[in-house]
Amino acid sequence: MILLALPQSSADGESVGLIDALFMAVSAVCVTGLAVLEPGSDFSYFGQTVILLLVQLGGLGFMIFGVTVAILVGKVMGLKYRLLLQPTTNTFSARGIFRLAMTILLLALALEAVTALILTIHWSGEMGWVEASYASIFHSVMAFNNAGFTLFDNSMEDYLGDPLVNVSLSALFITGGLGFMVLVDLFRKRSLRKLSLHSKLVLVTSGSLLIGGFLFLFMVELFNPATEGLSLTERLLAAYFQSATPRSAGFNTVDIGNMLVASQFFIIVLMFIGASTGGTGGGIKTNTFAIIVLATINTFRSGHQVHAFHRKIALETVMRALAVVVSSLAWIIGTTLLLSITEGLHNVHFLTTLFDVVSGFSTAGLSMGLTEELSPIGKIIMMITMFVGRLGPLTLAYLLTYKQRPSRINYPEDKVLIG
Amino acid sequence: MILLALPQSSADGESVGLIDALFMAVSAVCVTGLAVLEPGSDFSYFGQTVILLLVQLGGLGFMIFGVTVAILVGKVMGLKYRLLLQPTTNTFSARGIFRLAMTILLLALALEAVTALILTIHWSGEMGWVEASYASIFHSVMAFNNAGFTLFDNSMEDYLGDPLVNVSLSALFITGGLGFMVLVDLFRKRSLRKLSLHSKLVLVTSGSLLIGGFLFLFMVELFNPATEGLSLTERLLAAYFQSATPRSAGFNTVDIGNMLVASQFFIIVLMFIGASTGGTGGGIKTNTFAIIVLATINTFRSGHQVHAFHRKIALETVMRALAVVVSSLAWIIGTTLLLSITEGLHNVHFLTTLFDVVSGFSTAGLSMGLTEELSPIGKIIMMITMFVGRLGPLTLAYLLTYKQRPSRINYPEDKVLIG
Ligand SMILES: [K+]
Ligand SMILES: [K+]
Repeated sequence: MILLALPQSSADGESVGLIDALFMAVSAVCVTGLAVLEPGSDFSYFGQTVILLLVQLGGLGFMIFGVTVAILVGKVMGLKYRLLLQPTTNTFSARGIFRLAMTILLLALALEAVTALILTIHWSGEMGWVEASYASIFHSVMAFNNAGFTLFDNSMEDYLGDPLVNVSLSALFITGGLGFMVLVDLFRKRSLRKLSLHSKLVLVTSGSLLIGGFLFLFMVELFNPATEGLSLTERLLAAYFQSATPRSAGFNTVDIGNMLVASQFFIIVLMFIGASTGGTGGGIKTNTFAIIVLATINTFRSGHQVHAFHRKIALETVMRALAVVVSSLAWIIGTTLLLSITEGLHNVHFLTTLFDVVSGFSTAGLSMGLTEELSPIGKIIMMITMFVGRLGPLTLAYLLTYKQRPSRINYPEDKVLIG
Repeated sequence: MILLALPQSSADGESVGLIDALFMAVSAVCVTGLAVLEPGSDFSYFGQTVILLLVQLGGLGFMIFGVTVAILVGKVMGLKYRLLLQPTTNTFSARGIFRLAMTILLLALALEAVTALILTIHWSGEMGWVEASYASIFHSVMAFNNAGFTLFDNSMEDYLGDPLVNVSLSALFITGGLGFMVLVDLFRKRSLRKLSLHSKLVLVTSGSLLIGGFLFLFMVELFNPATEGLSLTERLLAAYFQSATPRSAGFNTVDIGNMLVASQFFIIVLMFIGASTGGTGGGIKTNTFAIIVLATINTFRSGHQVHAFHRKIALETVMRALAVVVSSLAWIIGTTLLLSITEGLHNVHFLTTLFDVVSGFSTAGLSMGLTEELSPIGKIIMMITMFVGRLGPLTLAYLLTYKQRPSRINYPEDKVLIG
């Protein structure tokens, strides 16, 4: 943060100011990508490199952090991080876990390197080799970490119709968002049938959201007069990219503000769902969303257990999913109310506020314009939201709560009507 | 519906048209109170009486319907309606239940009559005895049934500073919203400590929402330039009334459109929560909301059971609450998306759409102006939403599903990560 506030970090040699530097640093570490300044034009190469390192630290570091924590404070973090290792390693020794962390690191760097290479070749004609390799590395790191910053002042809008940029970047951020348990599971099992229930749920939910989102955005935006000049290829690519990026990459190839209200609201829902546990993305997570939907369907069918792929899902899991959804909704509603008050005098529209709050909480990074107009107090509120959203309500609760002995009193049961 | 489309029902002797008559009839039967026409100026006395009867039938009838259904199709409706009788009658005989239904009917008519009498005396100077008694009966019926129609074109805005109108109407609609199990429970036990868990949860949640809502609206609206001319008494009454009416009476004493965005969004949340099971109001219900919050808190505390007032809450109850919240959210999101598309060309603001959709689904009846400008297709969508919201997702699922034997396969358990 201090580094970003240095004059050396700024494009024009004058410090960007402490609060904006702090905001950009928080946004980078949380891999959110919401920006009060443009990484491309407001920061020097030095400043951009600081952002890049913060993003790599925040995204990839958070993945490895989970593994490390599992060794150091295994008991405090409890089931979650031990579970997360079960499918990936048979040993709980420090050495086994260190090797796993190295695997993740190498895998991530390899994927980033391959994408950067492809993009360098692709962009070399347009930008020259030096600029092209710099931009390629920067955007590959942003993509794998689902960070969403770009060096261009209009995100990826210039590459709306460029299939190679669309496909290579989205492949990278979708991979980063799946979570390393799923990646390792895929790598080891090499068979869809043998995958763990977690991997199956993540893959099916992610796939469905991608296809459903693509179809919805493609059809709805046909009615948007702003898309009139686009060719069919551009429309298809735009619908695909804008359905993938809310969960939670944060690049955009069309101006979100020019989309129809229905599309904007739909993107809010996609951002809320987000990526998957153990990945570089945010949101309530595809696996949480799947559990909530399965539990609801099960209740409507008067079923006696929540199940998927011939496996029962523990009630404890459903309760955790419920807690994540309810507390996330509560946080988003509270923050939106708060910002409506603090920023209300600026006449900001409600949808813009809701959009940017969900984007910040879900570390999506897309913006309808609220963020860059935030008051200082609004910036602080948004920073806290990005941080809380990045850690996630459950992780935060575990970190804040000392291991309190849950009450073991067995209360008699009583009934409450519902519905 | 046919009756409302008759020329005799219209104020100017020309039929209001089938679709608008149908909309008003659905809104009346569902005790929603959303209006495409003004009951006061667009309908004749005959038309208004039809609306009044539809409301009484829809609100009070729905209460008694539950009891009747319990006898006739006890097995189909299952646990819910039998449970609902347990605290109120010890006999499941037809005679016992008929007596209970008569008790409800008489209680409701008595409460309506008392309020109507008070209002008649209060309004007699202003309107004359005939008009005053007519208006008093009409609004008392609307209040007990949480229907929200008024004979005035600006709802209750003329009575913003009138404590008697504020208190008598709100007392009636709050009572109607509590649900008859709670009323009978209160009446029989005459001691707060001895009340059932259901009654305690309903009373505590309703009270907290009322007090919390009052404080929030009072403080936020201090910053609203539109409230400048109001006295302290008017501000206090306005904050109280507007915090009570969203769950789900539907009268308003200030123009919702002139409130601050934060207040409008807050009212959306209150409407979503709504009144209590077994009452004349809608929404997900205070009891459902309480269960969801309790379950979330329990998970954060790593507790082993959801409990309140020294009573354990069954996991089945939590699952039902989860299903109600998730399916309600899904319906509201889907309807808002749909209306954004069908009404989008009219440039309706997003908050207005969301507000009216939640209002329709929760049978609240407050409006920010979308409803009266709906296209014919939009009116149909809104009618379906009012109907689905009135029956409630769970009831609807029971009615639609033939008693299918739930699968008894016992799947092995597998773990999914959350958070
Ligand atoms: K992001
Ligand atoms: K109503």
